[in-house]
Amino acid sequence: MISYEDIVMAHEKMKGIVHVTPLDYSRTFSNYAHNDIYLKLENLQKTGSFKVRGSYNKMSSLSKEELQKGVVAASAGNHAQGVAYASTMLDIPCTIVMPIAAPLSKVQATKEYGANIELQGNSFDDALCYALELREKTGASFVHAFDDEAIITGQGTVGLEIIEQLPDVDVIVCPIGGGGLIAGLAAAVKEKHPHIKIYGVEASACPSMAMSLVEGKPITVEADPTMADGIAVKKPGQVPFELVQKYVDKIYTVNELEIARTMLMLLERNKLLVEGSGAVALAAMLYQKIPIKDQKVVCLISGGNVDVSFISRIIERGMVEAGRFMRFSTILKDQPGNLEKILEVVTERRGNVLDISLSHIGNKIYPSYAQLSLSVETKDQKHIEEIVQALKDNGYDPELG
Amino acid sequence: MISYEDIVMAHEKMKGIVHVTPLDYSRTFSNYAHNDIYLKLENLQKTGSFKVRGSYNKMSSLSKEELQKGVVAASAGNHAQGVAYASTMLDIPCTIVMPIAAPLSKVQATKEYGANIELQGNSFDDALCYALELREKTGASFVHAFDDEAIITGQGTVGLEIIEQLPDVDVIVCPIGGGGLIAGLAAAVKEKHPHIKIYGVEASACPSMAMSLVEGKPITVEADPTMADGIAVKKPGQVPFELVQKYVDKIYTVNELEIARTMLMLLERNKLLVEGSGAVALAAMLYQKIPIKDQKVVCLISGGNVDVSFISRIIERGMVEAGRFMRFSTILKDQPGNLEKILEVVTERRGNVLDISLSHIGNKIYPSYAQLSLSVETKDQKHIEEIVQALKDNGYDPELG
Repeated sequence: MISYEDIVMAHEKMKGIVHVTPLDYSRTFSNYAHNDIYLKLENLQKTGSFKVRGSYNKMSSLSKEELQKGVVAASAGNHAQGVAYASTMLDIPCTIVMPIAAPLSKVQATKEYGANIELQGNSFDDALCYALELREKTGASFVHAFDDEAIITGQGTVGLEIIEQLPDVDVIVCPIGGGGLIAGLAAAVKEKHPHIKIYGVEASACPSMAMSLVEGKPITVEADPTMADGIAVKKPGQVPFELVQKYVDKIYTVNELEIARTMLMLLERNKLLVEGSGAVALAAMLYQKIPIKDQKVVCLISGGNVDVSFISRIIERGMVEAGRFMRFSTILKDQPGNLEKILEVVTERRGNVLDISLSHIGNKIYPSYAQLSLSVETKDQKHIEEIVQALKDNGYDPELG
Repeated sequence: MISYEDIVMAHEKMKGIVHVTPLDYSRTFSNYAHNDIYLKLENLQKTGSFKVRGSYNKMSSLSKEELQKGVVAASAGNHAQGVAYASTMLDIPCTIVMPIAAPLSKVQATKEYGANIELQGNSFDDALCYALELREKTGASFVHAFDDEAIITGQGTVGLEIIEQLPDVDVIVCPIGGGGLIAGLAAAVKEKHPHIKIYGVEASACPSMAMSLVEGKPITVEADPTMADGIAVKKPGQVPFELVQKYVDKIYTVNELEIARTMLMLLERNKLLVEGSGAVALAAMLYQKIPIKDQKVVCLISGGNVDVSFISRIIERGMVEAGRFMRFSTILKDQPGNLEKILEVVTERRGNVLDISLSHIGNKIYPSYAQLSLSVETKDQKHIEEIVQALKDNGYDPELG
């Protein structure tokens, strides 16, 4: 069993090894969510996620003999980086098995934290099998990502920090994947402060913990693709499940659009890069999934490891929603000067052309006419309407979309 | 004159109003820069920049009568948001004058912090004139962005925090625009700890402080456009100038590419959104402009207010540099199936087509041939070479660029 005292000891052990991450009050989000919102910033943790807490606790509890034989783990995500970093801190050998198609950026980052990487198998399950084989062969200790008491005890240290940083917290909202983080957090908090509510949040694409609770045991769910890939765990762990059953007050879900918008707001308003799974707790508060008001709420921002190219797409999508882009097509007579004339209309209203194409062939295009397609950077929805009106006033018939 | 004691008093006054921002050690940047690099994260400050320190100190030192008449300032940047936030904290009227063409996002943010916005004039100087007129008319106090002792005293509080957070700091590197931040910082640090080196960093597009030091007085320089717009001040302030002359050990510059790469690294590695001017101090360390080694160096990350659409462009540029995109054109025979064949070659090597165009008219294009242009998402430089080789092996002659 996991005890409060073990979590306190784990916290002592990791001083100087992991950050005590900031707990930041956000005025803007508080206004949106009708509660006092505090963000526990584990995206600013060593290795960019909370995972290092569990890994370090697990590994530092191994015997001298075990330590000499090193550790092995299977992961292409935050767990990999956490285990790699902890092994470097303890100065022991570490092998991380990743599927062959693992993103280069993850391989690189995990290597930089000091692990030896083995690319094996076409799926995560293949990689896992290989990692377990390695354990047999080398005698290395296997470090599970969540279904392990020492791991959960380590994750629980984040709960101690929250209580220290905000003693009168009413509610803690936490992402759920395999369940290790929320299980540890709940064990750390609920024993001494049973009045503090703890809510879990899953991506609606993969609500495995919520469905397991309904069934009364960990079950495997069919998962849709989700940008919260860090918590897209199809079957929760047995140990976390029992703790969630005992301590967690309720589980909510958020959808993909809510996650994307929350990521964009965290970047724009709070200057913070947060991964999809790291944003779900705040998303649940911003989109008022949890029926509470005027409470002191801590949202656990669990990690920030997201490919920047993905962020670039989220930004663009957010800009489209905010009226910062328009795209339209219209028919022009195919004569010198006509293209310039219509561009003048757009430019006079300070629209910035991003993309342009002209086509002479098409169903709606008669000979000696051409179809123009334009993408324009705009200020907001009103600006778009203004440009459309100006085009109409000048005899064009713009078709948006 | 600005005294150490005034800065200590200012720091007392602003407790609970501004954040004591984190000072984070970065292993990755330390390795790159061959020094121990700590980041003082003023991008996580209230309003997203250090400016609120100076504004709050200035405004809280006004008399009761002055406070009743409120304040006025001219700015479309961080200063605007700092003054607006401070006025809300003090519950006094506040008018910010911005040029008519000010970005909507800045207007919106400043409004949300509680200011009344006046859009006036086509340039910053016009807006400034109007703000000074308002002062005459209404009796409101004018809050300068940097050339004011109370402002500089407020900015200096960041220096006290650094000494408290890292008592054995050797070097502090700080961005310079008008000079208010570095002047206050130096006044706070150098009096008691003359051995700590303080270096300033400017954008090479606008090195007004460095050139002013050469001339022995504040001069106006011609400035090129720079993404570090927050420090693109053509003429430093008189008060900051004198303090810089007295205390600052040396000034260095960084160029646009160095700033952009540093912004991208801060986002990718540290999960932090930082504006161009906020990145220059770290850029100077990463690009080894400052000849020091194995020192404990604090880089002041002064702000994070940058339009996300701009970040999206920086990400894309960074991806091009990292071999994450390729663009090529080649000639195809104009027959059904030929387009599919070449796409097969790209797809087999797991290149992801982002953009495609086909043209029949051009200098190099003979009748019954067409020119294909393709943009492909790739993994790295090696992946690009692999795709190019595969194209050549299949008889194509790809032209990159």
